[in-house]
Amino acid sequence: MNKDFKEIANGSVTSPIGFKASGITAGLKRSGAPDMAMIFSDVPANFSGAFTSCTFAAAPVQVCRNRVLTQQKIRAIIVNSGNANACTGKQGVVNAEKMCAVTASELDIKPEEVMVSSTGRIGVQLPLHIIEPGIAKAAASLAADGGPIAARAIMTTDTVPKAAAVSFEIDGKTVTIGAMTKGAGMIDPKMRVLHATMLCYITTDAGIENRLLTEFIKLGVEESFNRITIDGDMSTNDTTIIMANGQSGVKIEKDGYGAKIFYAGLIFLMQKLARMMVLDGEGATKFVTVKIANAPTEKDAVLCAEAIANSLLCKTAWFGCDPNWGRIVAALGYSGAEFDPDKVTIHYNDKPVVVDGQDAGTPEKELAVVLKDKEFTISVNLNAGIFDYWVWTCDISYEYVKINAEYHT
Amino acid sequence: MNKDFKEIANGSVTSPIGFKASGITAGLKRSGAPDMAMIFSDVPANFSGAFTSCTFAAAPVQVCRNRVLTQQKIRAIIVNSGNANACTGKQGVVNAEKMCAVTASELDIKPEEVMVSSTGRIGVQLPLHIIEPGIAKAAASLAADGGPIAARAIMTTDTVPKAAAVSFEIDGKTVTIGAMTKGAGMIDPKMRVLHATMLCYITTDAGIENRLLTEFIKLGVEESFNRITIDGDMSTNDTTIIMANGQSGVKIEKDGYGAKIFYAGLIFLMQKLARMMVLDGEGATKFVTVKIANAPTEKDAVLCAEAIANSLLCKTAWFGCDPNWGRIVAALGYSGAEFDPDKVTIHYNDKPVVVDGQDAGTPEKELAVVLKDKEFTISVNLNAGIFDYWVWTCDISYEYVKINAEYHT
Repeated sequence: MNKDFKEIANGSVTSPIGFKASGITAGLKRSGAPDMAMIFSDVPANFSGAFTSCTFAAAPVQVCRNRVLTQQKIRAIIVNSGNANACTGKQGVVNAEKMCAVTASELDIKPEEVMVSSTGRIGVQLPLHIIEPGIAKAAASLAADGGPIAARAIMTTDTVPKAAAVSFEIDGKTVTIGAMTKGAGMIDPKMRVLHATMLCYITTDAGIENRLLTEFIKLGVEESFNRITIDGDMSTNDTTIIMANGQSGVKIEKDGYGAKIFYAGLIFLMQKLARMMVLDGEGATKFVTVKIANAPTEKDAVLCAEAIANSLLCKTAWFGCDPNWGRIVAALGYSGAEFDPDKVTIHYNDKPVVVDGQDAGTPEKELAVVLKDKEFTISVNLNAGIFDYWVWTCDISYEYVKINAEYHT
Repeated sequence: MNKDFKEIANGSVTSPIGFKASGITAGLKRSGAPDMAMIFSDVPANFSGAFTSCTFAAAPVQVCRNRVLTQQKIRAIIVNSGNANACTGKQGVVNAEKMCAVTASELDIKPEEVMVSSTGRIGVQLPLHIIEPGIAKAAASLAADGGPIAARAIMTTDTVPKAAAVSFEIDGKTVTIGAMTKGAGMIDPKMRVLHATMLCYITTDAGIENRLLTEFIKLGVEESFNRITIDGDMSTNDTTIIMANGQSGVKIEKDGYGAKIFYAGLIFLMQKLARMMVLDGEGATKFVTVKIANAPTEKDAVLCAEAIANSLLCKTAWFGCDPNWGRIVAALGYSGAEFDPDKVTIHYNDKPVVVDGQDAGTPEKELAVVLKDKEFTISVNLNAGIFDYWVWTCDISYEYVKINAEYHT
């Protein structure tokens, strides 16, 4: 970890100065688990966001994109789990705006100062008769230590809440960044600024212009959430929102020292939460880093990494602790990337597996030892250029099939 | 079925005149199941082939591609299961050529008149001390009724052998086409002529020039094997080979009536075997046809069909008989195809599921009835153009994970 910043124990979106949050049960989930979260800034906050690139963008994503284009500042974010408000047509957008209006009314702010997210079942209109009292309850429950319960309220198939925060000093003042995410399935986010069902909310008490926030988020998602895949299925609702309320008294300027340290802290948080999502992937028993080195183009490196990370045969082999590298070369071979198969080398951690496209001769038992670990790295050297890329992924287990065959009915 | 031709009961590669085949146990599989097959034509036969487009093409594929480029006629095909001879470098090619040479010696023909295939484990050199006596045994076992046992000998994780034949009359003479395939996993073939671990061998007693055979195979694989996907993983060894020995006395000319009926019969066979492969997909419990209609380009139609067919979330929902269409629209949304989400309609068989991008209102119980069938069709109308496409696929079950987590170790 970078020594310029430190992680805060039990950190969350309420770790920065001037943020409150809440998580409550409105009644959207049969389980009775918390299902609505609210984040509130004491003062108007600069903001930016990245959203799913899925053609079927959910109604709340449409509303949020519009806010990013038209608003300078926001005050609050309202989130529900249990219903995605996706594929719900014009009524869905009306309902998402209604969630903002009710939130604004409860908090005595303007509707356009509210961002909105939903996650859960696709294709069902929001039950406003449950949502509206939920918003009132969430507003009444806002608290300066509400971050952890908010992180719990946005969970769907997640088994653990995911929140963290870091702080650092600039000019003798303390700046804090807090964040929370949810997501364990339908995870292969390809978030684009303005056009990213993982949800991520980031708060900071630094003062940062919207344009710089957008740059930070754009770079940040590329280095974190856009590099994870659990099942290769992108969601209709993927969303990352950052709020910066300036309450630390520190202003972060582009290209300054502050920007450098802020970005390092932000990336640390986003990667930490991205890792937590993969570790909590539906039914996952393995955390696998796939590294591609020396591809002829960056696109080729990405193609190779994603082909391996999304290969069902690789993922089931990992689940079985099976060192079968044939499935890896098959995935490389159909990835569409350009390279000479006779120059490829592959390592499992530091064990050579393939050299010059052929078996490296490492005894299978030694390779199996690596794959029996909870975490390991598969490194592929294409020896075909200078471009590198990496992704984080997990295995596919019986439990994944169980969760997804039984989730809905 | 086209009334111009009829299917032959228990048809196989030995149904056409002048072909013999065999299937024997050489000892490549721990199970002791048959593991080598041979097909032999009494006279030199015209031929063509389509092979994997995987960059890591296996050694036998490299040998076969070369034959297609340099040879006018062949006499025999030798196939082993249990070892893929892939990622085996120059030695692998030497060994594949050795298989041809031993076969030629046993049959008193030339090595370059032999095509060769391997399927099974990747990355291990062929055990020639087992293969060579196996070839002798296969040659000694050649029989005019050897097609069915040959179909059994090429199986790996397949649970049933897959063979069929059709015949038709031209100018009062009977022409027969026979075929066999294997493949139940690592199935998402994208075979290209000269570049197509499914294996398919087709024999016919029609007389057809190599150039026309190539055209037939190119069109045929596009309409059959290239439209099936079990797990989205393409193999290093996918191969389709056709032999035409002219022993029926009928010559098929391009653009003639004979070509039309021959192609219809060939497509019938190839689609029948492609269906059988999906039905026998590793752990599959459902056979699903995904139809895309009215896409703006053919590429968009293909992108949509393959996104749905390869989506883990869709495949696990089918396994769970879950009508959850949200996963289908999510897959359409991330497919990369161009369309207006508000114009999309979806049907399960004849039941409307989505109209204008929103829930069609059909009671979920009615939809669940469709998904409880062994076979059903998912039809998507993009209402965005004139291009259609379809693929055949299956679900992903606990059994798939079990087979692939435990296959090797």
